[in-house]
Amino acid sequence: MSTPLAVGNSRVKEARKLSRRSVRTERRLFLADGPKAVEGALSVAGCVVEVFATAQAREQHAALLAGVEVTLVDDRAMDSLSDSVSPAGVVAVCRPVDAPLERVVEAAPRLLAICADVRDPGNAGTVIRTADAAGADGVVLAGQSVDPYNAKTVRATVGSLFHLPLALEPDPVAAVRAAQHRGLTVLAADGAGEVDLFDADLTGPTAWLFGNEAWGLPDELAAVADHRVAIPILGRAESLNLSTAAAVCLYASARAQRS
Amino acid sequence: MSTPLAVGNSRVKEARKLSRRSVRTERRLFLADGPKAVEGALSVAGCVVEVFATAQAREQHAALLAGVEVTLVDDRAMDSLSDSVSPAGVVAVCRPVDAPLERVVEAAPRLLAICADVRDPGNAGTVIRTADAAGADGVVLAGQSVDPYNAKTVRATVGSLFHLPLALEPDPVAAVRAAQHRGLTVLAADGAGEVDLFDADLTGPTAWLFGNEAWGLPDELAAVADHRVAIPILGRAESLNLSTAAAVCLYASARAQRS
Repeated sequence: MSTPLAVGNSRVKEARKLSRRSVRTERRLFLADGPKAVEGALSVAGCVVEVFATAQAREQHAALLAGVEVTLVDDRAMDSLSDSVSPAGVVAVCRPVDAPLERVVEAAPRLLAICADVRDPGNAGTVIRTADAAGADGVVLAGQSVDPYNAKTVRATVGSLFHLPLALEPDPVAAVRAAQHRGLTVLAADGAGEVDLFDADLTGPTAWLFGNEAWGLPDELAAVADHRVAIPILGRAESLNLSTAAAVCLYASARAQRS
Repeated sequence: MSTPLAVGNSRVKEARKLSRRSVRTERRLFLADGPKAVEGALSVAGCVVEVFATAQAREQHAALLAGVEVTLVDDRAMDSLSDSVSPAGVVAVCRPVDAPLERVVEAAPRLLAICADVRDPGNAGTVIRTADAAGADGVVLAGQSVDPYNAKTVRATVGSLFHLPLALEPDPVAAVRAAQHRGLTVLAADGAGEVDLFDADLTGPTAWLFGNEAWGLPDELAAVADHRVAIPILGRAESLNLSTAAAVCLYASARAQRS
């Protein structure tokens, strides 16, 4: 039985540096923290480079880690690799899973989520998780969106980061155009939209376009969409937050497409 | 023109203590931070005890604060009163707005949200905001739920804390029974539920029952509901998070009740 690596071990130290975006970008690697994320990562061929686990977690997640080569670390080393308050004891070093825009859009014949300038890591992760749950075929993080490989976003996806195709596209208009070119109707979620969500025809192939959590969609971007759709606000709230609005829209599509 | 109060002023110091739950409970007061929250608080008769603002914010929010007696504070004093990274410059000391369970349920003839053991301040606030947006008539925070008057929850409601009746009920079963007694059908949002959300009849008066963000609803509580309803998971995600699940359920009701 090998001795667990300690916090000062060079492999642990190198992996820990992946908490910094610049290092992730340079090395084209990131950390997936916790059993759900590691399970997702292991399901993607060639994604996982190395799995760190405590002896206790290796035992606890024996089924997940069966046949997987595990680098044992002690508790302090695990704490240093996880940004969670209570680390689950298993972390994987992973290769990025994003694909070119064209490939993601091609793989999305029915339902796609495009986020423009989503800045909050938790929101981005929640939208990816919700898109997965609603049966979307892909997600595009467009514009100046948050890095999907930061620890908070990965955690908020609860594994969904590895479940559906993801594209990172600096130009949101290019993402919209690509979806339209593929035959999807692009619907901008927009509180001032001319179509009421409850009246919208959502039966066809659809790409939802969501804006920034604070300032929404710029007019010129919303104008590129085929329609602007408002979720009706029936009480006195001014709006919904990004992830709840995305959930309502994506599930409205899921329902319409199923029936 | 009076001199703005500084961070060491006794009124500022006393107000700042309201960031502690024990002080809020003892004094029956809490802080509403930012223009949306203050606007909501001012719309409730007798709620606001005192409004603190910087000179700049008083000018910027002149319409909101017209006719309101404002205690001017300097920037450091405002920073000490706000838990926001970038304080908006206006904070109100408020009296609690919750009402007895019976009164909230009586005021909720059509749509009610009951949260059991919601622990995350942001989630609780988002559910209140979403319930407001979906036109719910009231919210019950039941069981060992988070204090709705902590700064993060108040902020996440974006004013909705003041828009719809709110009850705090330690016993979740009592909340369910009260809703049923009032003629509402209680639907437990439960991933293992026997009814598919898309097939559920949501046209009648409904109370949604939501569980804790990590462990969901205890079986014995879900069993008290009239039906257990599952949001269909169409992809590979295991579940939705609490606030997105609540959004999907509440908006499904809003849609069914409108049509």
